Parts: sequence; C-alpha cells; structure tokens
Amino acid sequence: MATVNLKKLATELQLSVSTVSKALMNSHEISIETKERVLLLAKQLNYIPNPYASSLRRKTSKTIAVVIPEVADSFFSIAINGIEAVAQSKGYHVLIYLTHESFEKEKAILNDFQSGRVDGVLMSLTSETVDTAPIHNLHAKGIHVIFFDRVCEEIETAKITTDDFESGYKATQHLIERGCRKIAFLCFSKSLSISNKRMGGYKKALTDHNIAINEADLVFCTNDDAYNHALLLKSMGQKKHPDGIIASVEKLTTTAYLVCKELKLSIPDDVKVVSFSNLQSAPILNPALTTITQPAFDMGKTAAALLFRALEKPGFSLKKESHIIPSTLIVRDSSGSCEL
Amino acid sequence: MATVNLKKLATELQLSVSTVSKALMNSHEISIETKERVLLLAKQLNYIPNPYASSLRRKTSKTIAVVIPEVADSFFSIAINGIEAVAQSKGYHVLIYLTHESFEKEKAILNDFQSGRVDGVLMSLTSETVDTAPIHNLHAKGIHVIFFDRVCEEIETAKITTDDFESGYKATQHLIERGCRKIAFLCFSKSLSISNKRMGGYKKALTDHNIAINEADLVFCTNDDAYNHALLLKSMGQKKHPDGIIASVEKLTTTAYLVCKELKLSIPDDVKVVSFSNLQSAPILNPALTTITQPAFDMGKTAAALLFRALEKPGFSLKKESHIIPSTLIVRDSSGSCEL
Repeated sequence: MATVNLKKLATELQLSVSTVSKALMNSHEISIETKERVLLLAKQLNYIPNPYASSLRRKTSKTIAVVIPEVADSFFSIAINGIEAVAQSKGYHVLIYLTHESFEKEKAILNDFQSGRVDGVLMSLTSETVDTAPIHNLHAKGIHVIFFDRVCEEIETAKITTDDFESGYKATQHLIERGCRKIAFLCFSKSLSISNKRMGGYKKALTDHNIAINEADLVFCTNDDAYNHALLLKSMGQKKHPDGIIASVEKLTTTAYLVCKELKLSIPDDVKVVSFSNLQSAPILNPALTTITQPAFDMGKTAAALLFRALEKPGFSLKKESHIIPSTLIVRDSSGSCEL
Repeated sequence: MATVNLKKLATELQLSVSTVSKALMNSHEISIETKERVLLLAKQLNYIPNPYASSLRRKTSKTIAVVIPEVADSFFSIAINGIEAVAQSKGYHVLIYLTHESFEKEKAILNDFQSGRVDGVLMSLTSETVDTAPIHNLHAKGIHVIFFDRVCEEIETAKITTDDFESGYKATQHLIERGCRKIAFLCFSKSLSISNKRMGGYKKALTDHNIAINEADLVFCTNDDAYNHALLLKSMGQKKHPDGIIASVEKLTTTAYLVCKELKLSIPDDVKVVSFSNLQSAPILNPALTTITQPAFDMGKTAAALLFRALEKPGFSLKKESHIIPSTLIVRDSSGSCEL
C-alpha cells in the first residue's frame, strides 16, 4: 500500500504542503472551501497523519504517561480507568510505565521523557524514591508532572491524595474498639509519604487511647513476597504476638492471611485484620476483609483532569492544586464483632 | 534550559547536521575521530535525541504496544511483567492500551497504529471482536501483530496460548471426580476462541463421562458485573441448581462466590467451584479456590521474544509460530474432597 502523506495530498490538489497541513489542522488562515477539498481527498485516500511528523510540527505528542509501581495492585488498575476516562475524551493516548518499585527504573523512564515523548506525566512514586532530580529536570523542560497517591511533598505541583493520616487513625481506632491492644503495622517504605501519614495516624490513635507505641510492631516490608512472609512469620510467631494487623499496602494482605493460617491463628478470634485495599475479592476472602477503600477511580480522574487543564491553559498553575479525596472504612468479618 | 539539538551540536563542532546525525548513529561513513568529538560534546551538553525526529529518521519508534482488555485481571498484569522483562532488555518502550472489552475501542487503537506509532503489537482480543479488518490493515503496512491468550484463529501470525481445551477438560473431569453431575460453565463470549476451546473441553469431558450436555448450564456473561450477578442468581436459584461451577474468566469467580453466599449455598458442600485464575489471593478465599493457573509470565515473555526476533531479522516469518504453554490445575478446598 503506497503511503499517503501530506506531499501526495498536496500534489493531487495542486496546493502547497503547508496549505494542506494548515487545512488539516483547521487553521483560520485557510478558506472553508479549501479545507473541504483537503478533507474530502484525505478521507478518500485514507490519509493517516504520521504521529512523529505531526508531533514535530505541533510540538506536542498527544500522549500522557502514567508512571506507577505496578498494575497488580487494584488501586492502580482502577486509577488507570479513571485516567483513561478523561484522556480518551480528550483524544489523548495513555502510556503506562511500570517501575516495579525500582527507583533506577523510575529514573530511566523520567529521563527519557525529557526528549518530549509525552506532554505530561501522572505518577505515583516507587517505595525507593529518594532523589527528586529527575522530576525537577522534567519541570525545567516545561513538562507537567502531577502526583497521585504516592506523592513527593517537596515538589510544588498538583497532588491528588486520599486522607492517609485520618485513614490510618480510623483503621487503628476501629481495631482498638474491637479489643486489640497490640497492633502490628505493615508498610513498604520509610521514605514514602503515604506510608508515613498512615503510620502517623496509627501512632496518634494508639496515643489517644493510651496504648504505648512499640517500634517492634512496625513491620517494614519490601517488594519480595518471600522476605515479607518470613518477617511477618517472625513477628506473629512470638509468644506475645500482635492481636491486630493493619496492612497499609494491598498486597501485604495475602501475606498476613497466609502467615496466620500457617501459625494456626484464627482471624478474627486471635488476630484482627484491616487492609488498605481496593480488592474486588475482599468480601469473599476467608474471612471477608475489613478494608480502608481508596477512591481510586476519582483520584485518577481528578489527576488527569488537572493535567489537561494545565495543557489547555498555558497560564494555569498546578502549584496550589492539592486535592484530598477521603477513603472509606468498610467493616467486614476480619475485624471481628464489636466488643465495646 | 535551551534545547540542545542536532543543529546546535553541528554548529559548535563546525560539522554538517547530517554528519553529526550519522556519527551519533555510529555510521561507518564517519571517522572514529569525528565520532569521538561528537559523542564528547553530546555528553557535555546533555544532548537527548528527540524521539519523534529520531523515529522519522530511523523509521522505527523503538516502541511496542500491548493491547489487552483490562489490567484488573491478574493474568494480564502478570503477562505484562513477562513482556516488559524482554522489552527492557532490548531498550524498547512498552505502551499499554486497554480496550475494556470494547471492539470499537480496539478498532480505534489499531487504526491509529497504522501511522507507525509502534513497531509491533502484542494483543489479546476483546470478547466482542468479530471483524479482523483492522488487524489485516496493520499487516498490510508491515506492522507485526502477535496474539497471546485470546487469539484470532483466521489470521496467520504467531499465537501464544495455553492448552485451553485440555484445561477445560481437566477442570470438568476434576469436578466430576468430586461428585458433580450438573456443572455450570461461565464464560464471556461465543466469539472468543479461548472461550470456545475451554467450553469444548468441558463438553468433551461431560460426554466422556456419560453426562448429557445441558445448554441451559452455559452461562454467557458480559463486562457488566450487575448483569452477570443477576444471570447467575437465576441459574443457581433454580430448585435443581448446578452442583458445580467452572468460571472460565477470573473476574467471574467473585460473582460465583457472592451468588452462592446470597443463596446460602455452601462451597464446596452444595456447589463445587473451579476457576481459570492467576489470583494471588486464591489460597485465602473462603473457601480457598481450586484454580486452573495459566503460565501468564511465560506467555508474555514468549510473545515478546518472538516479536523482537521478527523486528531484528526482517526475513523471519511469524506465520508458523504457534506456542502452547500448558496450564496447571491447583486443587484447593473449593472443589471439596475426593469421593471416588
């Protein structure tokens, strides 16, 4: 199939390439009659613009990137749906990049964006991210970066989060009300702002209920399932093991359940569990899982909507755009019945 | 920050743009001394090639697309990891496109690829796909399309599948051995080849065990959870309801469990369940789920490796490349204990 490009259209119509290009972009410089002639032939010959040539002309790629740690977490897969809902209505492509919790991968991805491959970036940090230079470099090149969920506090840009501190507090208070006095807190990283906020809420709730904070009950997990399993087995295998678990990351739920099963600890009789999770299967777990459910779809949608406002209105400042959309505590069997 | 482009490098070095470009691409036409001068300055000035300009010169985009129905299914999220493992080692970008089971979306995505945005496509069809013209059009443009999991039989290209017929047979035989005599088969679409194969295995196993095939036990679901729930509620609410369920799509597991719970049907006492699923949470469901587990990572990896062979060796034919990687039956509590 011979390629139909701008030159071919221009020759057939006896117009200049520049006129054809402007007509296709609906420029006010071109008459309506000419536009109609160009569009008709373009349709007849099935002309498809080369995106790379178009991008060079337009200086935009009509593409946004979503940079996230993984898609196996249902928070992210639902958030992507929210982002896509907005991007598709704007005729934009969404590229999904996975960092697999590796800062090195994240850095390589972000550095590549400096070239102009994408017009904007929606991202959620890895649990390892400590150096923010790659993000600053993108800002310096005029490429918008918006954070959702896992944000970088020190960078001035739009941040879409949920009420992580309050949710951590709510989850802990719920377990205390259900009789727990020694609550393990499972999290990914000391450097992640959401981990710290959720943990802050946990600590505040303990203090408010006159329960001493025990550093040994903070369980720092990694991206390695086997390591996390061994770590939690050690913690829950103690004679005076925790009587409650808060999994601040969805994937740690499976580890918590399997460890309790292995140690023959009954959930919720011996150990009560609450997870930060958007798992569709939460109600059919054994036992049904009490969750802090995040507004994943709305967070994705809000982040994307802000990015498009910035792309469409060059003067629009993202700096002050901080949106907190609350999560919901959904009580199910894993946290037992009310004792108070 | 002023943009450092080929022209800037050429001016500084007093060379032509074409010489600088060839030097950066390590062309044999350029002397080693000149290449070293160019590379040194490029590094000093932090020159990053514009991917769109580079793509126009190279006629390749260094990008492959993965077109899949969704990421909320753990088969796809694991397969993506397999694809990325190969693509990253080749220095390629992976773009993930979601069709959300809509043929219209799939068509729009594939038509856009005609422009040369990507060098190759790895795809799994939507449950609605009936028209293969968009795929034929890509082939006509010389863009490789490789199928994994949900394939299009009539198109001659590489297909990476699992043993769907045998797995359907194995799942059914397992339930028959556990005492089931009326087995409901939940699936997505009559047009999907994998649905038909899994159902073919199901029907063959019934026939081999002298159990009549009852068309009413074939439950055709859609992408709408509420619709599927109502449909299965009707089927399982009958006085003579099925005593076994095979969910041939992962997400139908939750529906099956919730419907049984609502109808107070005990799994596995009243109804035994097997699902085609890669859910990490399968062992912690109530009860633990017996699964046909697909080799998702290997399927993604194999599909990507074949695509790169075709991209790297222009004469390499994908037509005869058909790879079947077997799935595994993992028996857990949801299918009860052995009765034979």
